[in-house]
Amino acid sequence: MRSIDLNCDLGESFGAFKIGQDEFVLEYITSANIACGYHAGDHNTMAKTVKMAAEKGIKVGAHPGYPDLIGFGRRFIETDPIDIYHLMVYQISALKGFCDINQVSLEHVKPHGALYNRAAVDPYTAEAIAKAVYDVDRNLVLYGLAGSELVKAGTSIGLKVANEVFADRTYQAGGTLTPRNEDLALIHNSNEACKQVIQMVQSGTVKAVDGSTIPIKADSVCIHGDGPEALKFAKDLREQLEQNGIKIAPFQ
Amino acid sequence: MRSIDLNCDLGESFGAFKIGQDEFVLEYITSANIACGYHAGDHNTMAKTVKMAAEKGIKVGAHPGYPDLIGFGRRFIETDPIDIYHLMVYQISALKGFCDINQVSLEHVKPHGALYNRAAVDPYTAEAIAKAVYDVDRNLVLYGLAGSELVKAGTSIGLKVANEVFADRTYQAGGTLTPRNEDLALIHNSNEACKQVIQMVQSGTVKAVDGSTIPIKADSVCIHGDGPEALKFAKDLREQLEQNGIKIAPFQ
Amino acid sequence: MRSIDLNCDLGESFGAFKIGQDEFVLEYITSANIACGYHAGDHNTMAKTVKMAAEKGIKVGAHPGYPDLIGFGRRFIETDPIDIYHLMVYQISALKGFCDINQVSLEHVKPHGALYNRAAVDPYTAEAIAKAVYDVDRNLVLYGLAGSELVKAGTSIGLKVANEVFADRTYQAGGTLTPRNEDLALIHNSNEACKQVIQMVQSGTVKAVDGSTIPIKADSVCIHGDGPEALKFAKDLREQLEQNGIKIAPFQ
Amino acid sequence: MRSIDLNCDLGESFGAFKIGQDEFVLEYITSANIACGYHAGDHNTMAKTVKMAAEKGIKVGAHPGYPDLIGFGRRFIETDPIDIYHLMVYQISALKGFCDINQVSLEHVKPHGALYNRAAVDPYTAEAIAKAVYDVDRNLVLYGLAGSELVKAGTSIGLKVANEVFADRTYQAGGTLTPRNEDLALIHNSNEACKQVIQMVQSGTVKAVDGSTIPIKADSVCIHGDGPEALKFAKDLREQLEQNGIKIAPFQ
Repeated sequence: MRSIDLNCDLGESFGAFKIGQDEFVLEYITSANIACGYHAGDHNTMAKTVKMAAEKGIKVGAHPGYPDLIGFGRRFIETDPIDIYHLMVYQISALKGFCDINQVSLEHVKPHGALYNRAAVDPYTAEAIAKAVYDVDRNLVLYGLAGSELVKAGTSIGLKVANEVFADRTYQAGGTLTPRNEDLALIHNSNEACKQVIQMVQSGTVKAVDGSTIPIKADSVCIHGDGPEALKFAKDLREQLEQNGIKIAPFQ
Repeated sequence: MRSIDLNCDLGESFGAFKIGQDEFVLEYITSANIACGYHAGDHNTMAKTVKMAAEKGIKVGAHPGYPDLIGFGRRFIETDPIDIYHLMVYQISALKGFCDINQVSLEHVKPHGALYNRAAVDPYTAEAIAKAVYDVDRNLVLYGLAGSELVKAGTSIGLKVANEVFADRTYQAGGTLTPRNEDLALIHNSNEACKQVIQMVQSGTVKAVDGSTIPIKADSVCIHGDGPEALKFAKDLREQLEQNGIKIAPFQ
Repeated sequence: MRSIDLNCDLGESFGAFKIGQDEFVLEYITSANIACGYHAGDHNTMAKTVKMAAEKGIKVGAHPGYPDLIGFGRRFIETDPIDIYHLMVYQISALKGFCDINQVSLEHVKPHGALYNRAAVDPYTAEAIAKAVYDVDRNLVLYGLAGSELVKAGTSIGLKVANEVFADRTYQAGGTLTPRNEDLALIHNSNEACKQVIQMVQSGTVKAVDGSTIPIKADSVCIHGDGPEALKFAKDLREQLEQNGIKIAPFQ
Repeated sequence: MRSIDLNCDLGESFGAFKIGQDEFVLEYITSANIACGYHAGDHNTMAKTVKMAAEKGIKVGAHPGYPDLIGFGRRFIETDPIDIYHLMVYQISALKGFCDINQVSLEHVKPHGALYNRAAVDPYTAEAIAKAVYDVDRNLVLYGLAGSELVKAGTSIGLKVANEVFADRTYQAGGTLTPRNEDLALIHNSNEACKQVIQMVQSGTVKAVDGSTIPIKADSVCIHGDGPEALKFAKDLREQLEQNGIKIAPFQ
């Protein structure tokens, strides 16, 4: 029986600044990527979020980003690979500390935002990230954009990797996501989004914006946590996946 | 043979902002307390400093502080114990990550500045710190002001504790340091400072500012790392300690 | 005809971290205190909020706080008066810049959170704040807790001061607010809260928690901006004030 | 008589993190570019530096950068023009506040590091900066790399602009600086560096790395403030300029 992991970015609140509806979205996912204090999150939020995920049996992962609170880690910052290696070690280790005191295992790492995007295309960034994850704990799973440089770098160093796909984004013929500023970048219809995921899981393909059908490996789907529609979509997706005989389970 | 540990705060640079002369002071000490990015230090500096200390065989410790870069962790910030517990877990774990990738063991934790001072007198802060250290790794040594609430809390929870003494500060009859803003707070004469330490180690006493002789436990002496005099004093202290038959060795 | 100013803290979002419902609360108030980037707010939020307030004809004020984003400026930070003087100059001037480019006048300054509370009782903090406001622009109005040290310091240096009162907090016999951690600190009933304000404005008195009636000067009422109840209360208060013949107008 | 302005970046300390030797370098320059708290500097340092410059009669300018303390503003951060416009308004206005309380006039603005470099080549960044300077005060002088997009944008909006040249950097045939990572990028010989400046001022030309002689406009020379050689070079340059009949005076 085919299975798919549903992951979501959590723990993004910072002090009095609240983001997300973590307690609700945890009902629908199998893996939680928890912010580590650089682009979002703080030590109190991390503690609370790890505990909450652990209690619900959701897999806990680190979600490190650029040190850019004001930009929420969404902006590219020119950073050399050794710096990226160190900022990864710092953030993953900090989150691991909260896992340890909660007797839960840190399972995976997924870079955030602009760091994720950079790692998808830049092999130096990708290698620095993969090496940091490997050095901190070679049993961690590295999440990256399906087919990206990050996934390659992870595989190459000997990590287990999870190819991440998106339900609400379209793909180009080369397998990359259609940039957000282009028409057709987003799939607004919830049913179409579900169908895209089901096809990815069942046939290992996706229909690109040019009409061609291309191969794609789908280990995990990124679920958004913000807004009431996000929760509804997560619920719909779960139902449609299960109706199509796809098991929802953490990536292994 | 009596022995004493010499510790120093290191890794306090932040990006382009350089502090200290870490490579030189490492020649004179046995334990390094490395800043963890909240009041000083950053992921690159932590990586470099842990590596440098490890290569020289100096014991590596975490030196966590309040999240106050602009105040260098020297200002009291009203913080509840659960927050302190979490900020300790975060910072210790982050530093532990750099120890792990360098295959060196994290040995101790010494809170910084205003957090250290608060923990010396406030039992709630002290307990939160001791619990965090214990929960992250119960084999860590907790450094605190000799005879302070922090030392008590560490002992009480089951940690090994190092009573820290100061060479260049005077003590009051009750065993506390004379506040810096009072006359006689500082010992400016290098020989007197060395003598005070020797007496502490050899007889377990110190002469208080009121002339009385009071008991004090001296497990480690705090060495300053800034300025040319700091290095000279470290050298002098080592020589005088050794001439008096005191072994300089990490706390155990 | 008696009149009262209604003020609210606005512009507290920071990057992707959204706080408040500024566009709605602006409908009910006469003065906006805009965060300046130290405890909340950022340059983009400041620009947007000043513009929005200016367009609605609401008086624009600066709302400076301690440099403590993670604590939202709500925690006391040990800070010497010269530092407070400088952090006030910095924040007020930054906000003034956004007023200038919008051709709107900066009208007032109200310190935030822990800085406001400290200035209410500590004359050194109060004087530093009053001097900073005076030095930046002696025509600015200084907002402070009614009858506090801040109000005294402002008056003493020659500033116009606005005595701020609270609708939903009770007062002690000495004229100070009942601390939040005590029973009876808060007035939960919306009608009672409105009545308290009306009495303050009409008779210059308030009923203290011990049952005594004490004098209080009420120039401005602090309106909260968070949550749906906040908006409803603002609307109720406006109606009840007007029904009692009290004009709602900016402080002059 | 030909004249040239000598400018230097000052006020780059942050809390306990000290950078530079501002009191000494002020002896040699005519214009000070003072950091504004985003990439370096803080409210206390700004206050002190503005006062010191004012007392010595040095022209005071703002030196705003990207919000990147950990990167010292030296890293490119993807930032849209409206954000740049706002961060410029914020920083310039904050520094202007310290000028106002010291009764000294803010004279100029020079962007820092990666923002300066970006503005040299990207017309959108350049326009955002020029517009912010103009909107805050149209009498401010805008400093930019000689012949750059920033200088063009400043001129275009109606600002007075100062073309900045470098003594210790070589130029390419197109008029741009030779990138630092290339051979021949730096002029290590102090005399050659002085000669380059003298030629720039006297003949309006510079010898490019390919041997050709190209036109360049030199209104101000950037003096470095760090290290003992920096001060010595500043002294040498002053002497050689004066010996060659070039007046050292603020840009007008």
